[in-house]
Amino acid sequence: MSETRRGRPRRAEIDARVIEVATELLLRRGYGGLSPDEVAERAGIAKTTLYRRWPTKDHLAFAVVARLQDDDEITDTGDIRRDLPAYLEKIAAGLERMRRAGRDPGDTGDTGPGPGSVADLLAAAARQPEVGELVREMYARRNTLARALLERARDRGELRPDLDVEALFDQLAGALYYRVLVTGLPVDRAYAERLTDTALRGAARERN
Amino acid sequence: MSETRRGRPRRAEIDARVIEVATELLLRRGYGGLSPDEVAERAGIAKTTLYRRWPTKDHLAFAVVARLQDDDEITDTGDIRRDLPAYLEKIAAGLERMRRAGRDPGDTGDTGPGPGSVADLLAAAARQPEVGELVREMYARRNTLARALLERARDRGELRPDLDVEALFDQLAGALYYRVLVTGLPVDRAYAERLTDTALRGAARERN
Repeated sequence: MSETRRGRPRRAEIDARVIEVATELLLRRGYGGLSPDEVAERAGIAKTTLYRRWPTKDHLAFAVVARLQDDDEITDTGDIRRDLPAYLEKIAAGLERMRRAGRDPGDTGDTGPGPGSVADLLAAAARQPEVGELVREMYARRNTLARALLERARDRGELRPDLDVEALFDQLAGALYYRVLVTGLPVDRAYAERLTDTALRGAARERN
Repeated sequence: MSETRRGRPRRAEIDARVIEVATELLLRRGYGGLSPDEVAERAGIAKTTLYRRWPTKDHLAFAVVARLQDDDEITDTGDIRRDLPAYLEKIAAGLERMRRAGRDPGDTGDTGPGPGSVADLLAAAARQPEVGELVREMYARRNTLARALLERARDRGELRPDLDVEALFDQLAGALYYRVLVTGLPVDRAYAERLTDTALRGAARERN
């Protein structure tokens, strides 16, 4: 074992520990309550170590978001009418979790209709072009997997062969974001089912 | 004419002048460059008059957004395949305008893929519950008109009778917001046409 490795945790272990602490803080306190200095202290590492890996609070916050997204598995059972609402429900749950992060639910258990940290995170990505680029790459990777689910359903004949998969996925994910960010209406399993049904059946009276 | 009215502009005139100046500043400089004090000065009114009507910068910013939305007429020609992309194109143009507000387009005329002031405005609405409530009411009023367009198309038989109009509208508007805020992909007339076609035809291979 080399001198520099003796007794020191590996980089992957440090990363995992930092992200775990940051995840806990972000979900409990919201974007405004996340402090990289505090994360470093709680994770037992030097601040310089943390900032070398995640140069700003926003880099750290989106590392948490990426990790939470990776935890949401995309299940393909071969039945798109089952798999699609299941996946949309996961996106909805992730948005709801971030919407509520750091907000006092009050006596009723309700945090109100505002978008909470979902809006803070998007504004953070908008402020720093470099972070924005990371976020768009993260979503691009993630959405490629989600679109593959739709493409496989198309290839086995559940969806029509000339389907615009990109537009369809934008509509499904977009509806969830729109409700959380703009209209403040709830997103849940029932809503995921409504979206799936509306998108699959189509709005026109007659197919043409 | 009463003493207090002599020579003074009416409240509606003052409002219109303030909103005009604020619109020009917001679109030219972006959310970060909007200053209520400067708006009051340019409109030639006392700061106290402005703050009595719009207590914070965010109230003023959303008065601008509401005015811009009202300028986007919803045209009903009786053909939903024509009216829907036309209206979606207006939403897209409004988002693009706010996305580019205050950003230097550089030598290429491109401001890059970030959401710009669209994200700033949503974060502002998230910060102040009272402003968030105003914003949700504004969108609720606006979206009622847009959904009426779909409901009339359903009533005259262009759309299916059991259509979930709310889910359909969320999907269409949501896809535009999702691209501007999250994936950074362009929204324009061609994309509005893709959305309309995908939503009207439906994704499923066979109607069921």
